[in-house]
Amino acid sequence: MRLLLANPNATERVTKACADLARAVALPGTEIEEWTNRAGPALIDSYNADAAAARSLVAALGALTPVPDSVVLAGFGDYGTRAVKETLAVPVIALAEAALAYAVAVCDRFAIVTTSARMIAYTEDLVERLGFAPRCRAVRAVELPPIAAGEPPADEIVPTIAEVATATGADLVILGGSRLSPYAAALRGSISLTVVEPVACAVTLAESLVRIGVRRRRA
Amino acid sequence: MRLLLANPNATERVTKACADLARAVALPGTEIEEWTNRAGPALIDSYNADAAAARSLVAALGALTPVPDSVVLAGFGDYGTRAVKETLAVPVIALAEAALAYAVAVCDRFAIVTTSARMIAYTEDLVERLGFAPRCRAVRAVELPPIAAGEPPADEIVPTIAEVATATGADLVILGGSRLSPYAAALRGSISLTVVEPVACAVTLAESLVRIGVRRRRA
Amino acid sequence: MRLLLANPNATERVTKACADLARAVALPGTEIEEWTNRAGPALIDSYNADAAAARSLVAALGALTPVPDSVVLAGFGDYGTRAVKETLAVPVIALAEAALAYAVAVCDRFAIVTTSARMIAYTEDLVERLGFAPRCRAVRAVELPPIAAGEPPADEIVPTIAEVATATGADLVILGGSRLSPYAAALRGSISLTVVEPVACAVTLAESLVRIGVRRRRA
Amino acid sequence: MRLLLANPNATERVTKACADLARAVALPGTEIEEWTNRAGPALIDSYNADAAAARSLVAALGALTPVPDSVVLAGFGDYGTRAVKETLAVPVIALAEAALAYAVAVCDRFAIVTTSARMIAYTEDLVERLGFAPRCRAVRAVELPPIAAGEPPADEIVPTIAEVATATGADLVILGGSRLSPYAAALRGSISLTVVEPVACAVTLAESLVRIGVRRRRA
Amino acid sequence: MRLLLANPNATERVTKACADLARAVALPGTEIEEWTNRAGPALIDSYNADAAAARSLVAALGALTPVPDSVVLAGFGDYGTRAVKETLAVPVIALAEAALAYAVAVCDRFAIVTTSARMIAYTEDLVERLGFAPRCRAVRAVELPPIAAGEPPADEIVPTIAEVATATGADLVILGGSRLSPYAAALRGSISLTVVEPVACAVTLAESLVRIGVRRRRA
Amino acid sequence: MRLLLANPNATERVTKACADLARAVALPGTEIEEWTNRAGPALIDSYNADAAAARSLVAALGALTPVPDSVVLAGFGDYGTRAVKETLAVPVIALAEAALAYAVAVCDRFAIVTTSARMIAYTEDLVERLGFAPRCRAVRAVELPPIAAGEPPADEIVPTIAEVATATGADLVILGGSRLSPYAAALRGSISLTVVEPVACAVTLAESLVRIGVRRRRA
Repeated sequence: MRLLLANPNATERVTKACADLARAVALPGTEIEEWTNRAGPALIDSYNADAAAARSLVAALGALTPVPDSVVLAGFGDYGTRAVKETLAVPVIALAEAALAYAVAVCDRFAIVTTSARMIAYTEDLVERLGFAPRCRAVRAVELPPIAAGEPPADEIVPTIAEVATATGADLVILGGSRLSPYAAALRGSISLTVVEPVACAVTLAESLVRIGVRRRRA
Repeated sequence: MRLLLANPNATERVTKACADLARAVALPGTEIEEWTNRAGPALIDSYNADAAAARSLVAALGALTPVPDSVVLAGFGDYGTRAVKETLAVPVIALAEAALAYAVAVCDRFAIVTTSARMIAYTEDLVERLGFAPRCRAVRAVELPPIAAGEPPADEIVPTIAEVATATGADLVILGGSRLSPYAAALRGSISLTVVEPVACAVTLAESLVRIGVRRRRA
Repeated sequence: MRLLLANPNATERVTKACADLARAVALPGTEIEEWTNRAGPALIDSYNADAAAARSLVAALGALTPVPDSVVLAGFGDYGTRAVKETLAVPVIALAEAALAYAVAVCDRFAIVTTSARMIAYTEDLVERLGFAPRCRAVRAVELPPIAAGEPPADEIVPTIAEVATATGADLVILGGSRLSPYAAALRGSISLTVVEPVACAVTLAESLVRIGVRRRRA
Repeated sequence: MRLLLANPNATERVTKACADLARAVALPGTEIEEWTNRAGPALIDSYNADAAAARSLVAALGALTPVPDSVVLAGFGDYGTRAVKETLAVPVIALAEAALAYAVAVCDRFAIVTTSARMIAYTEDLVERLGFAPRCRAVRAVELPPIAAGEPPADEIVPTIAEVATATGADLVILGGSRLSPYAAALRGSISLTVVEPVACAVTLAESLVRIGVRRRRA
Repeated sequence: MRLLLANPNATERVTKACADLARAVALPGTEIEEWTNRAGPALIDSYNADAAAARSLVAALGALTPVPDSVVLAGFGDYGTRAVKETLAVPVIALAEAALAYAVAVCDRFAIVTTSARMIAYTEDLVERLGFAPRCRAVRAVELPPIAAGEPPADEIVPTIAEVATATGADLVILGGSRLSPYAAALRGSISLTVVEPVACAVTLAESLVRIGVRRRRA
Repeated sequence: MRLLLANPNATERVTKACADLARAVALPGTEIEEWTNRAGPALIDSYNADAAAARSLVAALGALTPVPDSVVLAGFGDYGTRAVKETLAVPVIALAEAALAYAVAVCDRFAIVTTSARMIAYTEDLVERLGFAPRCRAVRAVELPPIAAGEPPADEIVPTIAEVATATGADLVILGGSRLSPYAAALRGSISLTVVEPVACAVTLAESLVRIGVRRRRA
């Protein structure tokens, strides 16, 4: 099956990193195609960036020929998610919905670590809207450098994520931002909480919906 | 991977039917093992039956050697679900949690069709507890014959399911009971709503959690 | 004060009609400026249209020089609302938030009439997200002709709105769509419910925030 | 238009202070009439005081001749609010409903500072009931001296309010008590959060409802 | 123990009827004292009547010497309930809180029958505020004659209550108004639902709190 | 009346201690019969233990001849509670539902102290499901020794409970575990909060339902 990994932001480096994570979990028969929202913002870390990303994302994904078998929207937020779902009959999965559904299946209480303090309220609202607030212990932030500065080495950022997550008292942590996803493997080695990396969740959820033949019907 | 399909009720016929559905969607490398809760009730259609099922279910699943790679609990309810999750570190997935998570990913509003009028309140409470009540248009029931009477032919029951589901105004229907799952294919042919069959959802969700290496950590 | 009435859709006729409603209630010192999102969709009646509207809306409003004293977003939905709020420090008010706040101040239970059946779930979700679900009796739809066909005469559509709203049992009805706003006056004459026309609510709320000097601070 | 500023407590000094705030924001054509609930308690800072205030408040406001064009209830609580609304067809606005609606229009997360520790649970319940709990970061208290002791100078109380509000992590603070309202101007100068003063919100909301002709219909 | 049955309305006939119901269930050692809120309204069937009842109710109950061992507020609503609770350290129980707690202990879904159509929204709000909305199937009304007209004979009103309650699909019905309480016995004979009569619930709950020595501590 | 105090765990010492508490509050005419779920786990402090307890609990209670007039389930959790309710028409009361209903009748905010850190999420979920989350200030834990080690002396554990409960800021504390119930009397002497001991609540609630003749009807 053809699964399009669509990065809603314009940074190819992030697309590449997410696609690597996607390929590492995808089924043998799944071809991961990469797509970067070059007309979008370099990073999606605000409502403003959501709006800047949505139109070209929806338009491009709605115009794909042939239509892929499923789409993963590789951002942890809401940047036109339901619009893409509405446009395509094939399964469209965003990181947050997959990560939250997977998390509650294996935890008592989850925490989310996001990428900047100002995304805390944003992320709490997202969790509330998806119905998972009673299971959320806390949303916390680490501060990543600006996107143009590149990604910090794991040994710099992972201890901070580990510390922040452990302090919440949750038994599971979700990495709430596509820039954090590549640190999942290193984090697993340094923390006693279950670590949920959303790209892997979304890819496998999209594959599953294709395999079982569930598609959207227009209301 | 070894996936145990555990039927919380004692009726082998239901186990068999669910295992067939499981095998039809499972990955080539997934071996579906069947397990029937012979010490449980013939059918789980009440809180009482939940209680009658839970102990032997949890005890048997907790004592499996070797431990399977994941477990699907093939009942649409709550018959010791969190106890099995607590007992095993491997992914344990119940039908309802998987079906609801898959449903909201591809619908605006879902309906659930359950197997008897007295399961309506039960099922509404389940949806509320899992956080999906705002997306639920209605829970409705068809009446199946007693379990000992066997399963009605599709052309008898499917039109009723179709009618009941369509009348809700939802764009997706979940078959809320393992006895209803085998009718999914026939129902798809006679209804314009998306049809969600929970066994397929749970099997693929369990496989996914194994593939991405997410396991429960004890709090 | 300068209040920008920003129509998120591309149809000047709608902008014009809303601006007329705005001017009819605005304070003497309020200058209503019109802006139409010409790069947006002709009509916003889907998540897809939300996404198509948001980017140019946010970009244009964020680039205004000089910045107006406040902005009214003249669509009954969520087409980048929080992004515009985030971009500008001046008050930015969308129709739904104003109409709902005004409604609950003067009613026991409100109903919303929207412009097509497929906007019912969308509108229910909006009400839930804004916190007003317990006061909402029902969301109902009338069917307007396609935007290109123009607006139906009042004596054709108003009786339908009246009938649909009255049947809900609510004591107040909100016109949930900018195309419906111009019918408010005629509807008031033919219904015993309180009629809330959202453009008037949003304009006066925006003026009020300016008058009392409340502006957004960045977190 | 004639707007009655009705102080539910019996302290003329508070009425006066609130009326000053009201006049400072009212429209040129709005005549602010003052009314003090002399048969009420000196201060409303408990459920008991709510009950002591309500009857004479409702009776007096229901008997006004001529009926004013709108009424602002100048207390931050629930001292017969819905009864006054039920009694009069003209808009009746209480401080909390206006302040909360205005706050969420311009903030991510609000905090409320109230006037004594025992009003914290009271105020949380009020926020919950009005539907705004998910946007509330915290309710905190400063301790004012007894009402008979007069009001503390701004340079004594404002730094405490500022400190308490800032510590919540909210981006907006609501002054949750009519005795706190007069400190709004001083507070704005010493805090980076948006400051919402409820009397100004309620007065402008009441004026707006009158201007747009929205009145209550009896169910 | 001395239990004060306090009727928040001014109609002695209602007090008498409720006191009879109270005595029929009270413990041998419980002395039921009657108190009628003569300074209150003849009937409490609106927010306005709540406000009219509260002050004298709270003042009188707060001034009782000696203080009774517990108080039952014999109205199905919120007419200063929390104020009386705040005033007295002894247990104070209102009809609705007792009836709802008792109902959910023995039902799947309850319905409430109230005494006039305009009390439906009021009662729904009460149920929501007390946390029982997910278990409530419906609030419905019968129409009683004006209080001055006396009470209708059972064979006139009971069939209507039975019909209205049965149609909801609930398995339990709460009589949501003190004027309805005397019909409980007759209703039990003509309906298959469990019938909950709130005076009996509140009296026994108040007695229980006294017996186990639980009193309010001031915060 | 005959009230069966059913201990869902297998430890006679706990049954005995709860029966003593029950007898201390029961009415003269109430005969407290003890029953220990010998086929259950020694202690119920996990979902697993819930499942281990439920079947024999439900089976034994459903087979009682003659049926007692009511049943109190003496565990603070959900170990087949609704199943026992469904099985018997007589009132069946679990500790948590009674304690929470009694608590909110006399407090502003309650706290729960439970018996181990891992029961915190469990107990929060229970409170949420029963509808009382908005009134809950916090769930906290003390750590009791293993059940086999016996119960610690009051002067060892009571100061810890007192400290933990007081730090929450609640005005009432519920002892959330049957092993904690016997410390209620000592705790009352050393804390300014109201102390709610659940066995006493459940016994009196069960008695009350019997006295007023409210029984479950099958749906």
